[in-house]
Amino acid sequence: MKIAKAETPRLLLDPDRLKRNIDMMASRAAALGVALRPHLKTPKSLQVAARAVPNQSAPITVSTLREAEYFAEGGYRDILCAAATTANKLAHADKIQRETGARILLVADSVAMAAAADIRAGELGATFQFLIEIDCGEHRSGVLPGSKDLMDIAAALKTASNLELAGVMTHAGHSYALNGKTALADLAEEERAAAVNSAEALRAGGHECDIVSVGSTPTVLHARHLEGVSEARAGVYLFWDLAQASRNICRLDDIAVTVLATVIGHNRANGSLVVDAGALALSKDISANAFLPDVHYGYLCDAASMKRLEGLSVHDAYQEHGIVPVPDPQWFDRLPIGAQVRILPNHTCMTCAAYDSYDILHGGEIVESWPRVNGW
Amino acid sequence: MKIAKAETPRLLLDPDRLKRNIDMMASRAAALGVALRPHLKTPKSLQVAARAVPNQSAPITVSTLREAEYFAEGGYRDILCAAATTANKLAHADKIQRETGARILLVADSVAMAAAADIRAGELGATFQFLIEIDCGEHRSGVLPGSKDLMDIAAALKTASNLELAGVMTHAGHSYALNGKTALADLAEEERAAAVNSAEALRAGGHECDIVSVGSTPTVLHARHLEGVSEARAGVYLFWDLAQASRNICRLDDIAVTVLATVIGHNRANGSLVVDAGALALSKDISANAFLPDVHYGYLCDAASMKRLEGLSVHDAYQEHGIVPVPDPQWFDRLPIGAQVRILPNHTCMTCAAYDSYDILHGGEIVESWPRVNGW
Repeated sequence: MKIAKAETPRLLLDPDRLKRNIDMMASRAAALGVALRPHLKTPKSLQVAARAVPNQSAPITVSTLREAEYFAEGGYRDILCAAATTANKLAHADKIQRETGARILLVADSVAMAAAADIRAGELGATFQFLIEIDCGEHRSGVLPGSKDLMDIAAALKTASNLELAGVMTHAGHSYALNGKTALADLAEEERAAAVNSAEALRAGGHECDIVSVGSTPTVLHARHLEGVSEARAGVYLFWDLAQASRNICRLDDIAVTVLATVIGHNRANGSLVVDAGALALSKDISANAFLPDVHYGYLCDAASMKRLEGLSVHDAYQEHGIVPVPDPQWFDRLPIGAQVRILPNHTCMTCAAYDSYDILHGGEIVESWPRVNGW
Repeated sequence: MKIAKAETPRLLLDPDRLKRNIDMMASRAAALGVALRPHLKTPKSLQVAARAVPNQSAPITVSTLREAEYFAEGGYRDILCAAATTANKLAHADKIQRETGARILLVADSVAMAAAADIRAGELGATFQFLIEIDCGEHRSGVLPGSKDLMDIAAALKTASNLELAGVMTHAGHSYALNGKTALADLAEEERAAAVNSAEALRAGGHECDIVSVGSTPTVLHARHLEGVSEARAGVYLFWDLAQASRNICRLDDIAVTVLATVIGHNRANGSLVVDAGALALSKDISANAFLPDVHYGYLCDAASMKRLEGLSVHDAYQEHGIVPVPDPQWFDRLPIGAQVRILPNHTCMTCAAYDSYDILHGGEIVESWPRVNGW
């Protein structure tokens, strides 16, 4: 189907850009000498996974058990669920492991969680492998590198009847607040050191620590080296977005997903266009604006050429209406009612979550639809 | 299932509060002497619709054609799709009308849209009924009351081969920015006058104008009278949210939906709890903060009693992590790792859109699950 005929709003995916992004990160991980464990919380799609991780025995990352279930049923065997777990999630994790044979790696950052998980695992007759989360400076979650808390959790996992320590993981999420290459390289080193020092402390304490996992897209791209690290996690590089472009982590031309929208109104008195992509179609995330304050809810592009329509962005987002002020009335002629535009996402993980599929573009036509999974 | 055993995050719905809200608005519409056309873009659920609109011949409102299709297939016969349409949506609208026999009322606010719709309707061999949208002061979309634009669109619909004029509609969405009863009553009168004056102008010009539709929850609740209006639209009253409570349109105790979440971390160094409800589970909408700046991404409540945990709200929302600063370390004892909380939504339409079902609560147990529809 030609996109000009397509009902809107809908989520378009450019497979050539996706492939370029996948190849770029694969080369980067190879150059760093680490395994790549792509974070599939961004695409949540088996078809994207088939391209990013063609070998289903290779490691992947997810952020919810629904994703873990979906990818395990799709054939993936080594799945890290990267947010700290709780006892009320373990029946689900157990079901996935039993029914698919996949290994679901869980995360803990407290003795209390490890103790509760061991009791629940015992009730379920299950065994779970855990990574201990290290706080490398974001101060969101995790324990400090090499700390007593780290050793206490490792000890709790060792004495637990139904749990095993598989390694450590850390996430430099605060890299998203930086936009300088040196600062990012320094942060990548802090992230690496936090994980490696923790792994060494565990080994010195008599624990095995096979997995030493770091990652955020910006730090993986800017790390000077990743010595001692076994694997790197990154997700947003698959599709990119304005938040990453705003920090010069990618270029606008790398962004692989866009929202196709239609001009549904001309508000000449107000000097604005109305499009049928609002808060649900775009999300209310405005994270790109910290460094690019003219993004608002997203830059507009020409639907066919993907050239940016300079000066146009969605300023207000109602549930199903997006408001696009125009700097000049000639835009009412350039974008008549019924014209289509494409809108670049602020934060691709949030935007994609409103859709249950990607429409795959080839030569201005939608040639395929790839489903994605949402929810928990 | 006891909620204490439930995997989180999940969306809970209190059916008693829902019923109270439904009864309140039904009484209000009866007192005003108008039909109620509930806006089901908020719940997007047939089970909620069955309680709010038990008579399936009665009018309903939706904001997308996927909702229209879902409710038409579920038995509803009179469906207003309240955002301006475009030609690329008409094949879908036609399919719904043909397959279900429902009437899909569409909206136009330009001659260009009416002309394009007539051509497309001709190609489809379909007939569509239209309401003309009036701008009663929000200046988002619509034509000015009684304006030449209004009369031109009516003329275009009259000369169109495949379209019919069914009436006018307006929406005082700017009522969401007000929090005073007198200001809201004044705005309700502007909304009413805009619709009624437009209907009268159309009738004076020789057009029929059966439907005179107004509405936003705040204006319907505060209107002094709705003379000349045939129907009122309102949606958020079904569930309410913090944005409405922040403007004193409802009380916190009226809010019928909450997000059940689990404490997954204690960050004692930072003085914060981590919960497993982040940006996807809550949405990034922060509209309640204009009048209640301590809401951030949502107030926390005790999971069992629904009493507010005073001083606790989600300050930062990562994809799957919510950060809750605690004013006092005693909260780490009151809310140990694994404890559940419930989070009130900022903007219920946005929060619910992340879920594919509502869990219905009765006496602390989830007794039923009601599906909802998302997307376009």
